[in-house]
Amino acid sequence: MFSDALRRDAARIGAHLDEVLAKEPDLPVIHGMRYAVSGGKRLRGFLVMEGARLHGVPEAQAIWPAAAIEAIHAYSLVHDDLPCMDDDDLRRGLPTVHRKWDDGTAVLVGDALQTLGFELVLDAACHADPVVRADLALSLARASGHRGMVLGQALDIQAETAETPLTLDQITELQAGKTGALIVWSAQAGARLAQSDLKPLTDYATALGLAFQIADDILDVEGDETTVGKAVGKDADRGKATFVSLLGLDGAKRRASDLVDAACDALSPYGARAQTLNEAAQFVISRDT
Amino acid sequence: MFSDALRRDAARIGAHLDEVLAKEPDLPVIHGMRYAVSGGKRLRGFLVMEGARLHGVPEAQAIWPAAAIEAIHAYSLVHDDLPCMDDDDLRRGLPTVHRKWDDGTAVLVGDALQTLGFELVLDAACHADPVVRADLALSLARASGHRGMVLGQALDIQAETAETPLTLDQITELQAGKTGALIVWSAQAGARLAQSDLKPLTDYATALGLAFQIADDILDVEGDETTVGKAVGKDADRGKATFVSLLGLDGAKRRASDLVDAACDALSPYGARAQTLNEAAQFVISRDT
Repeated sequence: MFSDALRRDAARIGAHLDEVLAKEPDLPVIHGMRYAVSGGKRLRGFLVMEGARLHGVPEAQAIWPAAAIEAIHAYSLVHDDLPCMDDDDLRRGLPTVHRKWDDGTAVLVGDALQTLGFELVLDAACHADPVVRADLALSLARASGHRGMVLGQALDIQAETAETPLTLDQITELQAGKTGALIVWSAQAGARLAQSDLKPLTDYATALGLAFQIADDILDVEGDETTVGKAVGKDADRGKATFVSLLGLDGAKRRASDLVDAACDALSPYGARAQTLNEAAQFVISRDT
Repeated sequence: MFSDALRRDAARIGAHLDEVLAKEPDLPVIHGMRYAVSGGKRLRGFLVMEGARLHGVPEAQAIWPAAAIEAIHAYSLVHDDLPCMDDDDLRRGLPTVHRKWDDGTAVLVGDALQTLGFELVLDAACHADPVVRADLALSLARASGHRGMVLGQALDIQAETAETPLTLDQITELQAGKTGALIVWSAQAGARLAQSDLKPLTDYATALGLAFQIADDILDVEGDETTVGKAVGKDADRGKATFVSLLGLDGAKRRASDLVDAACDALSPYGARAQTLNEAAQFVISRDT
């Protein structure tokens, strides 16, 4: 079942990251790295693990890119939370890295976590072929850099000062970068490890990523700060265009639900073996955190 | 001759970076990336190119890791200059990225340049074997992350608030991370591309990296702000331990000169073909910028 698989994978990825960071010196940047990668749903890491299982890739191999994507995701959150970016005090119900330490430490923690992500995906200890490791790392760079995640963040910053709110097409493009690109990479990783066709998992994750962001916008309106673990209602307060402001609450829910159907359809080549990923798609729009 | 080779390589690396960033959208983060990688001595990129020439590796291949290390170096400078880090207004005689744009843009520019570094070193367009590309990228991650450059930066921050100034051993360890690791990686890259013995270039660059930092400390005391292109005298003002405060000005100059001799000795297996790298080592301690 999905929730068991998610919990089990999250624990294994956490143990792997703990092990990687266990022997490091006693410095704030190292403590901050450990802190930033602990907790969270680890949905991206789970997508790596489950995509690998679909392709018969051993878990001992998949754990490396799974831990890598969680390090990259954590880096983006640490930097995103900085006062000069989104200025958030709370993340996963705990003080953000710059609140617990300071801004300079948070910059370094994010920098080092990005590097760690590439290190993990390239580590020969995963016993994947160098061709596969180079392919995983190059696609990760493309998904997370100025044509992927960072592009989405830059468009997001630009939107905050724009005179007219974003259109639905613009917000879709923004989110495809900001959250979509890493989710798509995560889902593809198993197929990359197996040097297999990327299309079904790419289509699945493209729809899933967008549904995920629509659900985030809904949570920002309907969610409870204590449960969500971070500030809510921020977008509406800023008068920012969101899927909810553009489609209405019911329209956004319907769109998210249609996207989940599309995501599940994309997995039909895998038949019943894709059951857990189908449940994951349902989870994404029904979560309360 | 060294100065011609440096100028020629710097121009080629600049052109390569311009080409890579030419077709990107009109956003502050992209302008900031172009700005941050323009100018500078490009000593690290030159070491890549020259190490590659020593091993008969084509320039069309070496230009990729050369551009990559300049992107990584630029990322570290953009983040280092932030108000929450070293708080510098001037770099290479021009306003730093956060002064020309803002802190949030500078965080994103640094993040995207780090990613670009990995993308460039992994790009299949360099026609290096995937084994070589994975090796270059993994070693780059190790040199730049929390066991390399970021470790050095973290030790540097810790030293600023420490009650007792650093010892010579501690400052040597700090600098081996902060500046040494990327210089060593740069010098090794040609041997990695040729899948050849790394030892001579590693020994050369280890001595060179330390000499480079000692020269930096001397410039901070003796240099002229306009020529150096950044603030000088900052370390002494802060009462920070440097090679000059620990060894005295003459002692520091003697140590740097001994290190340059050691660097040149390490290249003896290459004979006369190492002439340009020998000159580079001399340049490192005689530069005024």
